[in-house]
Amino acid sequence: MRALHYVSARNVNPVDLEPQAPPPGQVQVRVAYAGLCGTDLHIFHGDMDARVQHPLVFGHEMSGVVTALGTGVEGWAEGDRVTVMPLAWDGTCPACLAGNEHICQNLDFIGIDSPGALQELWNVPAGTLVRLPQDLPLREGALVEPVAVAVHDVRRSELAAGDKAVVIGGGPIGVLIASVARHVGAEVVVIEPDAGRRASIDELGFRTLDPTAVDQTAAVEEWTQGAGADVVFEVSGAAAAVRGMTALAKVRGTIVVVAIHSQPREIDLQRVFWRELRLLGARVYQRQDFETAVDLLAGGRAIPTDALITDVVPLERTGDAFATLEAGQALKLLVAVGGDR
Amino acid sequence: MRALHYVSARNVNPVDLEPQAPPPGQVQVRVAYAGLCGTDLHIFHGDMDARVQHPLVFGHEMSGVVTALGTGVEGWAEGDRVTVMPLAWDGTCPACLAGNEHICQNLDFIGIDSPGALQELWNVPAGTLVRLPQDLPLREGALVEPVAVAVHDVRRSELAAGDKAVVIGGGPIGVLIASVARHVGAEVVVIEPDAGRRASIDELGFRTLDPTAVDQTAAVEEWTQGAGADVVFEVSGAAAAVRGMTALAKVRGTIVVVAIHSQPREIDLQRVFWRELRLLGARVYQRQDFETAVDLLAGGRAIPTDALITDVVPLERTGDAFATLEAGQALKLLVAVGGDR
Ligand SMILES: [Zn+2]
Ligand SMILES: [Zn+2]
Repeated sequence: MRALHYVSARNVNPVDLEPQAPPPGQVQVRVAYAGLCGTDLHIFHGDMDARVQHPLVFGHEMSGVVTALGTGVEGWAEGDRVTVMPLAWDGTCPACLAGNEHICQNLDFIGIDSPGALQELWNVPAGTLVRLPQDLPLREGALVEPVAVAVHDVRRSELAAGDKAVVIGGGPIGVLIASVARHVGAEVVVIEPDAGRRASIDELGFRTLDPTAVDQTAAVEEWTQGAGADVVFEVSGAAAAVRGMTALAKVRGTIVVVAIHSQPREIDLQRVFWRELRLLGARVYQRQDFETAVDLLAGGRAIPTDALITDVVPLERTGDAFATLEAGQALKLLVAVGGDR
Repeated sequence: MRALHYVSARNVNPVDLEPQAPPPGQVQVRVAYAGLCGTDLHIFHGDMDARVQHPLVFGHEMSGVVTALGTGVEGWAEGDRVTVMPLAWDGTCPACLAGNEHICQNLDFIGIDSPGALQELWNVPAGTLVRLPQDLPLREGALVEPVAVAVHDVRRSELAAGDKAVVIGGGPIGVLIASVARHVGAEVVVIEPDAGRRASIDELGFRTLDPTAVDQTAAVEEWTQGAGADVVFEVSGAAAAVRGMTALAKVRGTIVVVAIHSQPREIDLQRVFWRELRLLGARVYQRQDFETAVDLLAGGRAIPTDALITDVVPLERTGDAFATLEAGQALKLLVAVGGDR
């Protein structure tokens, strides 16, 4: 079967691997589509070389069809359309024992810490499978994982209908958070410096702000009649965004830290104190977020899938796809591992 | 009557002022004791010159006895023992309309933004009065306001019995937070670099850590069996404390920002994200915090008042008292404005 190996920084290699029968408790899935995300790009750049094995079959956003069951697996059948919630926890650490398995202190993120979806036949623990409805195209099924991220972020924020939300950063996760926030009934402003991205987001019906052209604090203040936003999502990963985000939130407002900040960031703690702000980290998802994400995609309106999926490329062109992502010329790129056949 | 004027940086002046009859809706209180806090020290240093009037009668931690009622005041009588919750809100801003009057966007903090307690006869809005029990010594009644700060901080953290809490900073507010946390049923560690302060806190029965001598992260990790603390209170105001605080909290743990950080601080947002931490600003108090604080002081066990009140000085020695505070040689100093007479 065809698969893609991450070999070393900027070096990915299509290879032929021997398919393995699923071990006990696992399920073999024929991967249809796999999405490439920022974390995959980090792997591609070599930034995660200390964490990942070499070579690594990466990829954790996907859709597919069940092809074989390992012994002891119940509730699944050949031909079932599925996606995978790519988390494996130990069940024994303090986080797991407190019910926070999704952020287990020894989490195995499948596709990063163990082999992932960029292979035609992928064996995964049966417990990671999430059912996709028959009428959801498999292309869109590959978006469940990033949508689940956005669902988790919005759920954690306790955003409510009628609230006003600011999303800092108009990349794919920013657009998904904005979409989920709108679905919840909130009004949304997306702050994004790139004009091309802003134009695409405008077309989706969101308000946008160019932080290089306007005083974003004054603009949000005006938009919220002097109150500040109910929720601010920091999705940009930029130091300047962190410096500015506290000024955007209302008294007792919430700021959700979605982006990865590899360096310590300067933050206005005086404002956190003065307005009794709440700053929440939000990472990955829980099963209910995956199920909500499937429902949102199956509903067909909440998530602008056509606008999000910039292109679908064959496995052999994954390296080129990363170049497109790097250039900021795409929101979501899918790899047609097996495609719709 | 005797009063104390803040005139300019490091310049306070005892003066004789003409007592005023209480205006409609206000109550005249004969001030018994007034506590000096970090904010008063900031005023004394001139750090708040842009905010305060000159001269200013400052002071906002106090106890006293009602001496006269303005027209329209009901529910109070001459001789009632009281303290004052020194907040006046506009009732019309978005924060007030959302029920967060205590952090009104146009808050008048009495004793900072308007005249305070360092005067023998003080007129305050009747709505700010909080009743003190007959058997609570007035010296201890002057501690209600700082105890209410600690009660508010602990309540906001949702600390529960059996939890483990870390208090960074062993000044008066740190000791009060530790005391309230213990009263709630939590186990407490206080991180404090000053040996003298640590010794006093040890005597109160708390665990202490010297962050200059031990690896505080490893120590908290061991104390919590690898989980991390349920709640971390940042009371020190130090940049290094902020850099280190995120490593002390458990997955989904809470960090409460109690201290004032006049500069932006570097914070490990990666850890906030990775552990889905919750960072909460906590400022002043609400009426229920004052009422709980009165109960805790009246109960006589939760708050180590004898250890906290380092000294009681006459009004004329307030300037010297600030020097003692600056030198870190005192926890709480009270000014006997009228005393127990
Ligand atoms: Zn675990
Ligand atoms: Zn207000």
